[in-house]
Amino acid sequence: MLKLNNELFSLIKRYGECKNFKYNEIFHLNNEGNFLYAFERGVAFLKQTDVTGKVLLSKICKKGSIYVETIDDFSQFQINYQLFFKQNTTLYQVSINKLRENIDNDYLNTLILKYTHNEIRKRELTLRDYTFYGKKGTILSNLVRLANSFGKIFKNGTILIDVKLTHEDLSQLCGMSRERITKTISKLKSDNILDYDKKRKKFIILDLESIKDQINCEECPLNFCNIC
Amino acid sequence: MLKLNNELFSLIKRYGECKNFKYNEIFHLNNEGNFLYAFERGVAFLKQTDVTGKVLLSKICKKGSIYVETIDDFSQFQINYQLFFKQNTTLYQVSINKLRENIDNDYLNTLILKYTHNEIRKRELTLRDYTFYGKKGTILSNLVRLANSFGKIFKNGTILIDVKLTHEDLSQLCGMSRERITKTISKLKSDNILDYDKKRKKFIILDLESIKDQINCEECPLNFCNIC
Repeated sequence: MLKLNNELFSLIKRYGECKNFKYNEIFHLNNEGNFLYAFERGVAFLKQTDVTGKVLLSKICKKGSIYVETIDDFSQFQINYQLFFKQNTTLYQVSINKLRENIDNDYLNTLILKYTHNEIRKRELTLRDYTFYGKKGTILSNLVRLANSFGKIFKNGTILIDVKLTHEDLSQLCGMSRERITKTISKLKSDNILDYDKKRKKFIILDLESIKDQINCEECPLNFCNIC
Repeated sequence: MLKLNNELFSLIKRYGECKNFKYNEIFHLNNEGNFLYAFERGVAFLKQTDVTGKVLLSKICKKGSIYVETIDDFSQFQINYQLFFKQNTTLYQVSINKLRENIDNDYLNTLILKYTHNEIRKRELTLRDYTFYGKKGTILSNLVRLANSFGKIFKNGTILIDVKLTHEDLSQLCGMSRERITKTISKLKSDNILDYDKKRKKFIILDLESIKDQINCEECPLNFCNIC
């Protein structure tokens, strides 16, 4: 869990409703109020879909993740978000109004502001990676974010991204065609930078330094540079 | 001004310090506290620079714009932001602490949350445009955002983007090379979609519908789809 959001997580858990979802279930976050979510166990992909049916994978929730739903008071416009459960998942859901009834509002607002400021920064830096370093930078920067979020470092220095991800998933994370992703992965493989365990559907980073070099990684703190 | 932030603007103006900047001045937002800014008149480009010196133009502030500085409490890491004044500009600056001393905190937090939630959504949608529609989508979606922010519609339906913008500025807005921008603009010109007034350094959109079609514009509300 991000230390940043420890306290907010505890509050959502304390006042929230515990919900269990099975592998392969889908949950639509369509938007009857401002809800906060805290993920206790499991893995869920938060996706948005545009009018043409294109899908963007915005966040991979795991134990410790928080998601704060935001409602636009000024119009009927909503981004359609869905949670796709990739493992049996337990989460807590609470409306912001319920939290306000139970907690000192000043304290609560401070915590939510901390979370939202951090989310803005995350996206600022993501936009930077995406624009400065093009399609390749989009893929490489997402590999760094995945490594920061799900990486298990082996003795030989390679890093297993310990979450099941198909090429399709990675293409949705990067907002690109699967062909493009597959082409880039093939190149990264032949350069001994990345590997893919087809059986377990997990990526393995062989040379993180090379990836970071290519996008002039600034070693941002983990609370900015993550996908969860 | 975005109706969304009317009240926050008034508070920053009421309790803030009035500052005047001349054309071509630069102001570094480096980061001794959480400050809020309200722009009373003028035009200022908010830019960030990465370690390699690449520059991203994040926001074009005009009368009515608000910017809320966010500090990372957890590390020394900062994104370096600067304001480049493109006209003589008047703004109000106030620390969040000073606002807290003077205003009901619950009310203040509600206003800031409204602002920050909106900022998150803006970036979510920007990321979507940038990834789904590639470099061309990055340029086209920024033209739509510029039209929403600075557009003056003429009787013949063309739209003057009424802020001075060089090709270099547009390249910094899109995080791309100037060559790429120039090439795309030439194509848009020859397709009778865009024009550029070299003397006044202003873009003119001849066919907004065509631009919107190419990026499957969902007609998001103006509080999301803007650059200011």
